[in-house]
Amino acid sequence: MKPAILLATGPWNPKLWEGPLAAADPDRPVFTYPDVPDRAAVRYALLWKSPADALARLPNLAAIFSLGAGVDHVVGLDLPPVPIVRIVDPDLTMRMTEHVVLHVLYHHRKIPQYQEQQKKHIWRELRQPAANAVRVGIMGLGELGRDAADVLVRLGFQVSGWSRTAKAVPGVACFAGADGLAPFLARTDILVVLLPLTPGTRGILDRRVFEGLARDGALPGPVVINAGRGGLQNEADLLAALDDGTLAGASLDVFVNEPLAKESRFWDHPRVMLTPHAAASSEASALAPGILAQIEAFERGEPLRNLVDRERAY
Amino acid sequence: MKPAILLATGPWNPKLWEGPLAAADPDRPVFTYPDVPDRAAVRYALLWKSPADALARLPNLAAIFSLGAGVDHVVGLDLPPVPIVRIVDPDLTMRMTEHVVLHVLYHHRKIPQYQEQQKKHIWRELRQPAANAVRVGIMGLGELGRDAADVLVRLGFQVSGWSRTAKAVPGVACFAGADGLAPFLARTDILVVLLPLTPGTRGILDRRVFEGLARDGALPGPVVINAGRGGLQNEADLLAALDDGTLAGASLDVFVNEPLAKESRFWDHPRVMLTPHAAASSEASALAPGILAQIEAFERGEPLRNLVDRERAY
Repeated sequence: MKPAILLATGPWNPKLWEGPLAAADPDRPVFTYPDVPDRAAVRYALLWKSPADALARLPNLAAIFSLGAGVDHVVGLDLPPVPIVRIVDPDLTMRMTEHVVLHVLYHHRKIPQYQEQQKKHIWRELRQPAANAVRVGIMGLGELGRDAADVLVRLGFQVSGWSRTAKAVPGVACFAGADGLAPFLARTDILVVLLPLTPGTRGILDRRVFEGLARDGALPGPVVINAGRGGLQNEADLLAALDDGTLAGASLDVFVNEPLAKESRFWDHPRVMLTPHAAASSEASALAPGILAQIEAFERGEPLRNLVDRERAY
Repeated sequence: MKPAILLATGPWNPKLWEGPLAAADPDRPVFTYPDVPDRAAVRYALLWKSPADALARLPNLAAIFSLGAGVDHVVGLDLPPVPIVRIVDPDLTMRMTEHVVLHVLYHHRKIPQYQEQQKKHIWRELRQPAANAVRVGIMGLGELGRDAADVLVRLGFQVSGWSRTAKAVPGVACFAGADGLAPFLARTDILVVLLPLTPGTRGILDRRVFEGLARDGALPGPVVINAGRGGLQNEADLLAALDDGTLAGASLDVFVNEPLAKESRFWDHPRVMLTPHAAASSEASALAPGILAQIEAFERGEPLRNLVDRERAY
């Protein structure tokens, strides 16, 4: 009998994961929280937005796998001191790259203005800078940020990146740390946010950041695309910056409170394109085989990959 | 004194070209039609949507340069029997790739549905296939089609292409000729049209083509993106296919008659995203240096590149 998996999917329907896990390895027992008939058999936990008790009293727990790209739902919990593995999967990465490329082009190519014109039956070509006259800045240069950067560079944009610690990415002007933020913002027309949510990044998108963006660019004004976490944005500052034109537009996929309240001003803001935390969903059928393969490798004695650093919180 | 250029820009303001041409080569005389003080001095004509007489009585005319990507405005004219050069420029190509990638992702990622939900304050994630479950078919595998295909392949889409004569493009399933059309359409969820307008392609986008598109795909229904020429589409058939759901959506940048009439049904059609022939505009400042460089090379005895074949009409 193989060591068992405990599946704790919080708000997600666990059936979405049970099937793909069974399909990928029919011999691996999977218990679904809170129904754990044999606690000693559990060696792995697959976790998404569940209480820490879900993982209490599992004497043989060896590793925790987070089921989404962000691990902020995990790192705040009082979890057993075993390694935490983040999802790094081409399926998830490519979905995020689709989202980022789509929303960069959406603002770059003035889709909101063309939709307004269409409504009014106005046939008028708008002045359009080439991609190489537009600067995209990516906050967060992990797997997701680097992959999106690669396609944006291919499309001709001037791409820069900002991260906590210095990184080198081909074709991307890299900035790092507190000192690197102002020069990074000053050369950014379209800001793409893919940061992890940590105590150090919570509320980082505030008025100072919005005012620090370039205002000498080829587009009418700076744009923010947040596909990271809602907690990264100070929403009062964000609304004020959209109201007063400090920001010309925003594509927002995440919010401090989700689902977004019906009465939120973001819904009807003319400068906002809103999606319901749909930038890169975790598709169990795509991700389950990779998780099970990592478990098999671990049982053969190979090290776990893509570990979360509890200290830095991502 | 260098041989002169005659600039005949039809509906475009010639000033947009005079400046960039002078900036790129101050020593090259440029006459602007109809003001041609010395007809014998003219060796090159830069042409966009002008009457054939613009080029009459130019005894030393050696080459005609078309200023837009399409040459349908040129090939029907009774022009002097000199070589016609089409614009092939990275600036123009990259603009078209931006447009194609944007509109493929716009339909793939269900932007119209999310915009509807936003209007109604509905927070609901829609089922989203991965790019590798979606088949994009490109009609026309010239410079523009091949470059767009390259980025779409990078994004993970299954890409196929159809052209008059057989071509090979890395990562792209290529179909050709009349016999290749039905199998190409049958495996296409999103149809991208970048064909030249010729007697053989006029009206090619008709009900038979729309009905031939895949209906077993991961998206709700087939989508057409026409960024080629309006004359490629049978507009009665296109509207009927949009009305009855044969097509789930369309991004239309070109129309049989432009500007599109105020009373056209395309403006308000809920399945249509409309742009005013803005997919890839000819930016004189980007294109003028390349044209002048080709002229210089020609005068050094090098052959002209990117020639139009008057027989096949593109």
